Amino acid sequence: MISKLTKEAIAGNSAVRAMFMEATELAAKVGAENVYDFSLGNPATPAPQVLTDALIDIVKDEDPLKLHSYMPNAGHEDVRAAIAANLNKRFDTDFGAGNIIMTVGAAGALNVVLKTIIDPGDEVCAFSPFFTEYRNYVRNWQGELVCIEPDYETFMPDFADMEKKLTANTKAIIINNPVNPSGVIYSEDTIKKIVDVLKKKQEEYGHEIYIISDEPYRELVYGDEKVPFLTKYYENTFVGYSFSKSLSLPGERIGYIAVPSEMADFKDVMDGLTISNRVIGFVNAPSIIQKAIVKCLDTPTDLEFYDTNRKLLYNGLMSLGFDCVKPTGAFYLFLKSPEADEKHFVEVAKKYHIMMVNGSTFNCPGYVRLAYCLSTESLKNSMPAFEKLAAEYGLKKREDFKGI
Amino acid sequence: MISKLTKEAIAGNSAVRAMFMEATELAAKVGAENVYDFSLGNPATPAPQVLTDALIDIVKDEDPLKLHSYMPNAGHEDVRAAIAANLNKRFDTDFGAGNIIMTVGAAGALNVVLKTIIDPGDEVCAFSPFFTEYRNYVRNWQGELVCIEPDYETFMPDFADMEKKLTANTKAIIINNPVNPSGVIYSEDTIKKIVDVLKKKQEEYGHEIYIISDEPYRELVYGDEKVPFLTKYYENTFVGYSFSKSLSLPGERIGYIAVPSEMADFKDVMDGLTISNRVIGFVNAPSIIQKAIVKCLDTPTDLEFYDTNRKLLYNGLMSLGFDCVKPTGAFYLFLKSPEADEKHFVEVAKKYHIMMVNGSTFNCPGYVRLAYCLSTESLKNSMPAFEKLAAEYGLKKREDFKGI
Repeated sequence: MISKLTKEAIAGNSAVRAMFMEATELAAKVGAENVYDFSLGNPATPAPQVLTDALIDIVKDEDPLKLHSYMPNAGHEDVRAAIAANLNKRFDTDFGAGNIIMTVGAAGALNVVLKTIIDPGDEVCAFSPFFTEYRNYVRNWQGELVCIEPDYETFMPDFADMEKKLTANTKAIIINNPVNPSGVIYSEDTIKKIVDVLKKKQEEYGHEIYIISDEPYRELVYGDEKVPFLTKYYENTFVGYSFSKSLSLPGERIGYIAVPSEMADFKDVMDGLTISNRVIGFVNAPSIIQKAIVKCLDTPTDLEFYDTNRKLLYNGLMSLGFDCVKPTGAFYLFLKSPEADEKHFVEVAKKYHIMMVNGSTFNCPGYVRLAYCLSTESLKNSMPAFEKLAAEYGLKKREDFKGI
Repeated sequence: MISKLTKEAIAGNSAVRAMFMEATELAAKVGAENVYDFSLGNPATPAPQVLTDALIDIVKDEDPLKLHSYMPNAGHEDVRAAIAANLNKRFDTDFGAGNIIMTVGAAGALNVVLKTIIDPGDEVCAFSPFFTEYRNYVRNWQGELVCIEPDYETFMPDFADMEKKLTANTKAIIINNPVNPSGVIYSEDTIKKIVDVLKKKQEEYGHEIYIISDEPYRELVYGDEKVPFLTKYYENTFVGYSFSKSLSLPGERIGYIAVPSEMADFKDVMDGLTISNRVIGFVNAPSIIQKAIVKCLDTPTDLEFYDTNRKLLYNGLMSLGFDCVKPTGAFYLFLKSPEADEKHFVEVAKKYHIMMVNGSTFNCPGYVRLAYCLSTESLKNSMPAFEKLAAEYGLKKREDFKGI
């Protein structure tokens, strides 16, 4: 007697979560040190000391009645003002507290935005490959997810396909930059091209087409890459941010929505977002952690750890003869399956205790995703296992691979 | 370009929240000590010291990487086991960790349950008067809320109306005990009568009709009253609990769903709830506060504070000539408006800086709700204002009212 949608959800449950649970079970059997778990994007560096100290100070010093009480559904006013000021400093924006809504992570942010703007049957586009939950989030509010193909050489959007997929029913497009699962970054040039198409289509159809910018990986950027801040390029942009990855806090569920004052119907939109935040059942983002992250807005993310893993994994796998999309952001590596059926490849890899997620989950069959947010030691130890896997597929080593 | 539902939601936004915002604005103008704010159910006693200590210990002692990481979507296994054991001890139930899902408060719990069981067009019943958000929660998942009338003498359910309102489309019934906004408690006798009707209707229609038991006020019970634990009476029961009121933590968003193993399709239901928890965007209940509430499961709620307010308010208003439903649970008093249009009565009361919420919001026109979770001093100070209000309506004092 559960609902049809729930039955479907059970049947097609997240391959990421399923693989994570399988990895956990395998670790219990053969020892955690013998399992190479590339399944889940669970940060592998601890939250910074400044966050721990902030949490203790807040709980010790603040009046518990005020600290734990209801607040406006949009979140603590001072927290929102601090986030706005920090964004202004970093991106030369013009936000105030009234442009920010605190949310239960980026997953909460995306659902709040989608509920606020979607009518039944509206279409929401996403660039393949994409985070598998987008499909569920859009479906929660009776929208339809429409997938835009990538250029399989560069994993940038296929703009011809984008033009085709934007219809009179398109209400929004989700941009995730840096990209989960491909690990690439859309440069300013790419963003400008996307925005040009959107502006043209807005004009053509005579209504807003929103960008929903999903930015949990904003700070995870390597080398000289830059991630453009989208409200600077397109005023109908919702930014959905999460502190899960940048501060290693995924279990605490804290993020925000930022909306530029220039957005069409700004006041109605903000009222709608605030009400949606309440009505979906979030009510407000958890209080203590709202207060704590404010003390860490200038704390840098521990990039070195991920960068070390990134280089080891990419260089190692390329040298073994695998083909990988060159990773420049987030903590994912996208590997081309050496056989067409990547699900079978994932099964074969399990023999060597390598746990990866099939690309079909991300609407991109033929590839697999490796989350390299495991310990560097475990990553190093996985290399002999990958070597056996490469041998099983008869891959030819690239002895002269230079690496990054 | 926001959605139609969101437009409607803005137009009919929560009278509770609107009154709370108005009270806050009035307080800024005339001084907080001159505003008698009975609008919002924001606990007025601080969280217990044991919770503050637990939070500090957890943040100090636990490995931040483990503490703040993703966990299973249902929540920390040890937390769920502890809650199950505590329920077993108190209510002679037979729960284990597998029967509990940690949620973002009771609002989160209700949405997770509703998403899991509702197909478009399914009906969900609620007993009037009810918490106004039920309508939004049911609508989130395309269900229809059906209202069952109360017996206006006792504010117990009208069973004849209940029989009429349960149809072949009824998927669930929400029971909120103690009741917000009426402040009454459904006794074991009342619960048994409700359950009898449900069992008969389940048989008649040949499918499950679930109870969704919304229990944020479970611990707020005065005198000798008892609140029956519903899984003991009816196996197709979801219990949705929140620590918001019992531990004065509404801003932290922590609660749970408890499901008895005897429920039909138990495994599918639990899988469905777990996935819904993730897919709606909660992902999991916030981690630190999950760990902290476990240390407070045996900590008694500060009832004395609310009981003092309850007696002062009920006795005071009855003596002034108002008619009130006798409050026995939660922290609400339901007052019969001295004029038919209770919205006008609410406006008149504002002249005296008394902020109440109209009963229409709770599907019960002709009444108003007073949340007596304000300071006892403020409550005492409000009495001369109520006296003026009574005089304006020409109410006759009950000089000999004995009180509770």
